[in-house]
Amino acid sequence: MDDGQRIERALDVAVAHAEAPGAPPLLAEAIRYAVFPGGHRIRPRLCLAVARACGDDDPVAADSAAAAIELLHCASLVHDDLPCFDDAPMRRQKPSVHRAFGEPIALLTGDALIVLAFETLARGAARVPTRLAALVGLMARAAGSPNGICAGQAWESEPSVGLSAYQQAKTGALFAAATVAGAAAAGAEPMPWRLLGEYLGEAYQVADDLRDVACRQEEVGKPVGRDATLGRPNAAALLGMEGALHRLADLAREAVAVIPDCRGAERLREEIQAQTRLFLPARVTAELAA
Amino acid sequence: MDDGQRIERALDVAVAHAEAPGAPPLLAEAIRYAVFPGGHRIRPRLCLAVARACGDDDPVAADSAAAAIELLHCASLVHDDLPCFDDAPMRRQKPSVHRAFGEPIALLTGDALIVLAFETLARGAARVPTRLAALVGLMARAAGSPNGICAGQAWESEPSVGLSAYQQAKTGALFAAATVAGAAAAGAEPMPWRLLGEYLGEAYQVADDLRDVACRQEEVGKPVGRDATLGRPNAAALLGMEGALHRLADLAREAVAVIPDCRGAERLREEIQAQTRLFLPARVTAELAA
Repeated sequence: MDDGQRIERALDVAVAHAEAPGAPPLLAEAIRYAVFPGGHRIRPRLCLAVARACGDDDPVAADSAAAAIELLHCASLVHDDLPCFDDAPMRRQKPSVHRAFGEPIALLTGDALIVLAFETLARGAARVPTRLAALVGLMARAAGSPNGICAGQAWESEPSVGLSAYQQAKTGALFAAATVAGAAAAGAEPMPWRLLGEYLGEAYQVADDLRDVACRQEEVGKPVGRDATLGRPNAAALLGMEGALHRLADLAREAVAVIPDCRGAERLREEIQAQTRLFLPARVTAELAA
Repeated sequence: MDDGQRIERALDVAVAHAEAPGAPPLLAEAIRYAVFPGGHRIRPRLCLAVARACGDDDPVAADSAAAAIELLHCASLVHDDLPCFDDAPMRRQKPSVHRAFGEPIALLTGDALIVLAFETLARGAARVPTRLAALVGLMARAAGSPNGICAGQAWESEPSVGLSAYQQAKTGALFAAATVAGAAAAGAEPMPWRLLGEYLGEAYQVADDLRDVACRQEEVGKPVGRDATLGRPNAAALLGMEGALHRLADLAREAVAVIPDCRGAERLREEIQAQTRLFLPARVTAELAA
């Protein structure tokens, strides 16, 4: 089974628990709608790639970590799309959850996905309780306050915010969680893997900013140019398109350079290079280079 | 230190982590505002009472379980008060979180409190990882879908819902989590403690329904009569005031009767009886009896 299949299966098992008999039907439907079909599943792929580089001696634990990270990511998308934030009508080429199910169910869907992330960890890593303890702590810090995705989103309510602190919390936290959780799930020391996740998180955010400024709406599946509309920091606006493209390339190189020594380092380097090429759709790279 | 002090201290330590340097100031302030000052802290008191009845051999783990339950409860209050649900202007004698901090911060406060509940467990029970595994699973099932508080709230978006399923998820789940988590934190088998929590949860809900129908607004600190306005099931409306009062008394008796055999059973019975007397303010009991 390849990583993509492992991720979809782990997510399907997780979501099936939330849909079990007795669940309110609309909420159950909305939870599945928010998770499937997914995007590139970049964060859980990164988590599995690091787990493999560390030996992947407990694939069930690694799968649960990968799924938990994607569930937290989906939760943040559902809540960020709500009218009081981005008021986004579309997400992943279909109506956003609140447009499809109404605001109350969308709010609860995000809540339930956060909870489901921790429940998925508890199920998947119960047989390795010391790893579970590490995973719950890592995941919570990536999601909450002071440095997780909730904090990142909350910076938008502050009168001023630095680009780096904002991106670090809003995007970097979950990428860093992906690498450290991959290591923790495989029983390796997690902290040496943090820097890799941070570089990749910043690279992804720069790519997202480039897309926000440059892309046509049909390409990214959500409205673009919203950072400027909403007054949010944007690397492409701050550095210029060319500056941002250079920054993206630098970050991708730095990421590969900080991969800790391990048996699977060489294969991981190749996987990371392949993944970072997906950060920008080929058409965009071509357009930006033109 | 009495239970009340243990709970406030554990909550203070938990909230302090979310406010650590680097936190967005408004979010940090709103998280503290949502947790302090509290109500009766009925759920965490119940958790500690059960932990003590089971020997309370790891008070740090028990405190973290009690705090986690209260944090999940506070999260649900913040989100339930939002305009898309109850649109409640007041909570615990002060403006609700979205009235004081705006809707975006209120939404993120609820999210961050859910995450903080799991982070608090991870910190408090890290030295007893097998207990932590049980606690994370129990807490997640009480909070999420299909049977937790998210599911309970989601039933309000369904065309029809039975009183029992709705109350079981919306209120019963967190009371049941309080008893089973108290046992699990003390290393006891959790499941025999479930029924006690379920009876108490239903008793609390009946008392809440009575208050909703009967009380003056200043007494409960939030608008009343809202169940009828919002078309929600209400035991006092369904059973009549006298029927609901009888049901409440029956449930409190049944709860005490199902306390599992344990060294601290006698003291626990007294504590539960004292707590259930707090479910209805004395003035209300007198008014209803008049």
